[in-house]
Amino acid sequence: MENAPNTFLRSALAQEDALRPSLGILDWFAERQEAHRFRLEQIPFARLDQWGFDPETGNLGHASGRFFTIEGIDVKTNWGGVPHWQQPIINQPEIGFLGFITRKIDGVLHLLVQAKMEPGNINMIQLAPTLQATRSNFTRVHRGKSPPYLEYFTDRSRARVLVDSLQSEQGARFLRKRNRNIIIEVGDEVPVYDDYRWMTLGQVLATMRHDNLINMDARTVLSCIPFANEADPGVELSAFGRALLTSLDPRSATQHTNEQIISWFTEQKFRFDLDVERMPLKDVAGWRRTETEVRHDSGRFFSVIACAVEADSREVFSWTQPLVKAHQQGLIAFVVKAFDGVLHFLVQAKVEPGNFDVAEMAPTVQCLTGSYETVPEANRPPFTNYVLNAPAERVRFDALQSEEGGRFYREENRNLIVYAGDDFPADVPDNYVWMTANQLKEFIKYNNFVNVQARCLLSSMSFV
Amino acid sequence: MENAPNTFLRSALAQEDALRPSLGILDWFAERQEAHRFRLEQIPFARLDQWGFDPETGNLGHASGRFFTIEGIDVKTNWGGVPHWQQPIINQPEIGFLGFITRKIDGVLHLLVQAKMEPGNINMIQLAPTLQATRSNFTRVHRGKSPPYLEYFTDRSRARVLVDSLQSEQGARFLRKRNRNIIIEVGDEVPVYDDYRWMTLGQVLATMRHDNLINMDARTVLSCIPFANEADPGVELSAFGRALLTSLDPRSATQHTNEQIISWFTEQKFRFDLDVERMPLKDVAGWRRTETEVRHDSGRFFSVIACAVEADSREVFSWTQPLVKAHQQGLIAFVVKAFDGVLHFLVQAKVEPGNFDVAEMAPTVQCLTGSYETVPEANRPPFTNYVLNAPAERVRFDALQSEEGGRFYREENRNLIVYAGDDFPADVPDNYVWMTANQLKEFIKYNNFVNVQARCLLSSMSFV
Repeated sequence: MENAPNTFLRSALAQEDALRPSLGILDWFAERQEAHRFRLEQIPFARLDQWGFDPETGNLGHASGRFFTIEGIDVKTNWGGVPHWQQPIINQPEIGFLGFITRKIDGVLHLLVQAKMEPGNINMIQLAPTLQATRSNFTRVHRGKSPPYLEYFTDRSRARVLVDSLQSEQGARFLRKRNRNIIIEVGDEVPVYDDYRWMTLGQVLATMRHDNLINMDARTVLSCIPFANEADPGVELSAFGRALLTSLDPRSATQHTNEQIISWFTEQKFRFDLDVERMPLKDVAGWRRTETEVRHDSGRFFSVIACAVEADSREVFSWTQPLVKAHQQGLIAFVVKAFDGVLHFLVQAKVEPGNFDVAEMAPTVQCLTGSYETVPEANRPPFTNYVLNAPAERVRFDALQSEEGGRFYREENRNLIVYAGDDFPADVPDNYVWMTANQLKEFIKYNNFVNVQARCLLSSMSFV
Repeated sequence: MENAPNTFLRSALAQEDALRPSLGILDWFAERQEAHRFRLEQIPFARLDQWGFDPETGNLGHASGRFFTIEGIDVKTNWGGVPHWQQPIINQPEIGFLGFITRKIDGVLHLLVQAKMEPGNINMIQLAPTLQATRSNFTRVHRGKSPPYLEYFTDRSRARVLVDSLQSEQGARFLRKRNRNIIIEVGDEVPVYDDYRWMTLGQVLATMRHDNLINMDARTVLSCIPFANEADPGVELSAFGRALLTSLDPRSATQHTNEQIISWFTEQKFRFDLDVERMPLKDVAGWRRTETEVRHDSGRFFSVIACAVEADSREVFSWTQPLVKAHQQGLIAFVVKAFDGVLHFLVQAKVEPGNFDVAEMAPTVQCLTGSYETVPEANRPPFTNYVLNAPAERVRFDALQSEEGGRFYREENRNLIVYAGDDFPADVPDNYVWMTANQLKEFIKYNNFVNVQARCLLSSMSFV
């Protein structure tokens, strides 16, 4: 049997350019958007159905006790400039499925992609994995339909597993949330329902270049895919694509061994304390609740709002729920640089309060940019000015990407990859390290190392 | 430069038999025991100095707020037979150092081993790593001497790092505790103080066969050592040692790929809920506090006691502290079996309340045995009867090993390795999986996977 890394690479190189001349996928996607009526309205908290504030704690939760709650946390840390703060956070202890069904069609692996509505999505519909389901979804707490294709993921006799690991989500917004990122391969035909479509991995990767077209859930699952480096891929690659393949090759020379990177990461976790205590939302200092939002006194960071949705394409036809609304756009960027011909990514160890384990490996730059006018260049996080001022010929990727529309209200971040020149220093601050794409993939495989922003940005690069 | 796995293997094969004819190390060890006077006395809680029960929570802690506290936890889980319970637990959020200094002497790597007193130790003195230090130790909260050799671990210019990762401790007793397991190599001579001695890895491994001679801290650090498989080790190996080397070889055929094992482990974490909430010790149901102990109403499990120590071989000369006293001996056993000539270890996914991440990879059997008389054979945990009834010719390792004497009062567990015959089933329950020694080492490297009992048992096997 062909090994998974080869199978994935051939799918990534297949038919990618089919997207550009025919726009077949974009047409299908536009048609799916036409096919559905939906309406989103921001409402006062009092109009939430089944959701409400606990009289004792002020936490915002569902009557069933399931889905998620908005609670408070008290954070103490010696990382960064603020040693102590309190904030609201999303607590969602259930592990859900984020999964793609794949199948070989004419010898090439195809992914079953869904055009999925989420209330917070920019454009309402985005490309999504075959299955996105919390345990509450599929134990049917809200008494809607069982999610399509669930049985392929729960009945192990129906498919073989290609990728399957627990991966973290945003540590600034979620308290230790993880999801099960899974890709399975079926042998027999499966029914293709409305809103679903087979695509090669190359076609999926091509959608990344469009702003807000493919959702976060799809991007994180794709980041777990291993690729081989075939000597003759049979397709003409871009110069960056060739460099990326070399960087994915476990035989390529690295600046540091994996053991050295683990030691570096151990030192970071050893140096930095992170003490997070859950607390009642109503007692969170500096935040206030109005009829329509929970927000910071400064108006910065984010707020918690309530929305009503009407739709015909989800498990139930209308519902209300809380969403988290960011007040600033974010910047997520990797600086990459070749050492002896091998592309390396500049990774930082970043502490965020909801992290499962103090620090995770993050992109070179991960910060808010909305209030940049007010921040002098010298006070911005390291490398921020470098990536924002990079000349066009050094930018290998630049698109706006969405955060999860089931929790976040129209949140988008600018995703950038900048190919640094020889003048970029090889020596970097203590909490940064150079890693090849293969090393990042290895740390993704063993999970709990690479954060969701780094994973999603890594998954957005295509080869052609 | 020679790679670390080869260096370690040659040290493991060097001079191991020096221990048996000359007993040089045992003589030195006996001499160290003679050289120190110490006295341990169980005392009422009221006689603790600087330690006391918080009037509000009943938690037992140190006046400085450092070291550790004994708190309560409320545990809900769908794993095992008990869905809900409360218990005391040790909370020690600080990450400490457990570290060996090594140096090549006559071309062979030697470890600087310490004869260290801990109040809870059986025989008071046991072999220990060069450095055992919590952050409170080396920030000198108790105003004693700074621990010897600390500077080699904190000043990275003095040594190169061979092994360095965060590793968990007992999930039934500690709330998410980890320590930094580190081995460094120095080039220049270092002073060898009283109570310290250079030993080859082979000599250290030989001490494992003696009951309660080498402490838990040393064993967990040794478990992180990678070994190469040299075609001609230049030393005659035992049949089991040869099989172990083959199992450590990354080129050997495995029953499952690492990706498949990660998927299996993901499934276990997905299936099992573990909801642990910290709570005041005074409110823990089923436990009571007397003048001299905190114990369970049934008299089972463990109790918290207080002790006074006088010694001249520690950073301060006398002190009092709480210790945890087990009421039952434990059994820790691996069943190993050859598949196509390659030794595999039968690993279980085990949920314990203090685990950092729901489940960890544990030995085939890890349970209490003290009350076995009262448990019918059919109700004992899987494989318990198999390992307890194994004929002598199948037992490859059998020794009593101590838990950490700085926290536990004379706690010892029987450590067993049983080489299963062809009649042992290859098919095992869902929460068990067969892994080679190399796979276990790989999961230890990426940490947060393999529990302390499995690591220590793995580290106890020698090659000759």
